[in-house]
Amino acid sequence: MSERDSRHKASMQKLKQHVDDKIAAADEQRGLLLVFTGSGKGKTTAAWGTVTRALGYGYKTAVVQFIKGLWECGERNRLEADDNLEVAVMATGFTWDTQNREADTQACQAVWQEAERMLADRDTYLVVLDEITYMLKFGYLDIDVVKRALQNRPAEQTVIITGRNAHRELVAMADTVTEMQEVRHAFNNGLQARRGIDY
Amino acid sequence: MSERDSRHKASMQKLKQHVDDKIAAADEQRGLLLVFTGSGKGKTTAAWGTVTRALGYGYKTAVVQFIKGLWECGERNRLEADDNLEVAVMATGFTWDTQNREADTQACQAVWQEAERMLADRDTYLVVLDEITYMLKFGYLDIDVVKRALQNRPAEQTVIITGRNAHRELVAMADTVTEMQEVRHAFNNGLQARRGIDY
Repeated sequence: MSERDSRHKASMQKLKQHVDDKIAAADEQRGLLLVFTGSGKGKTTAAWGTVTRALGYGYKTAVVQFIKGLWECGERNRLEADDNLEVAVMATGFTWDTQNREADTQACQAVWQEAERMLADRDTYLVVLDEITYMLKFGYLDIDVVKRALQNRPAEQTVIITGRNAHRELVAMADTVTEMQEVRHAFNNGLQARRGIDY
Repeated sequence: MSERDSRHKASMQKLKQHVDDKIAAADEQRGLLLVFTGSGKGKTTAAWGTVTRALGYGYKTAVVQFIKGLWECGERNRLEADDNLEVAVMATGFTWDTQNREADTQACQAVWQEAERMLADRDTYLVVLDEITYMLKFGYLDIDVVKRALQNRPAEQTVIITGRNAHRELVAMADTVTEMQEVRHAFNNGLQARRGIDY
């Protein structure tokens, strides 16, 4: 074996030991609270990727879309025939289009009722609260109400929260938090949002 | 209208103007190069979310998995019946399991042939090169070969690259780069990777 090959083997053995140690140390099994936040692209997309993954194993999955309700949605098109998927939508569209706090609050509260039902359902393995962070930021939803629903959910249920500026109390509660940082975004360099990629 | 409602409306009008200005300024349409990098959870997941989205519009989509070849994969289970999806897998598994540089290099080169074919195919709207960054880092693949294939791809084709420590030349080429930063990861606090969520 060449010296380079030996070095590679030694380095990979060390890495394997590290991975094995971490796997051995992880002995708790329960549903997780994941937060995808930050200004970069990929938050909602990662949530839908997880939905696809959960459905791939036949798990019952629920998605609540708090903002993009009036946009066409490729993921929903692709997956909506799946009996294990339920999607609830806040059907008012972007809050900067409606410009009406009272109507937005009502629409938000209505779809939150759906979310509460999903968060209480023992059969639902994964619940995505897509872009819920803005509802808290705009004051359409109360943080304590959201926290209580999360705390009381079934032990086996995983919840994903997406959106910029996640409330610090949600970040504190979460098991996994990823900050999607924007290093560069095509849209800011004159490139149009692309069908099937960006939406 | 209450003062709070008026303030909300004014703030949303300003936000809408900002959004509209950005949409008007974005006048270029072509395939994009996206990089999802960083140590946080969500890189591969965001790529699969985009695959689901593209398939939702009926676009031909290709995925090359450079590392997780021997893991069960929920997304693949869920989507593999779709005629528009092709998945190529480097079937050796994790490089820290094989611990064999030469065999890994051969396996990588073999699956890269598949990738090159996809990157040259005018009908393929989206190509995902999942975890290819490690192939470059370990020297299994040459950066110039990868750059050339990306530069020569059809203008309408979007490519997503995932993995930690993306090569600086790939970052420089990319239209959109998101750094998924790990703020917290359940696995590091003793929680087991979860079927249908983490894999």
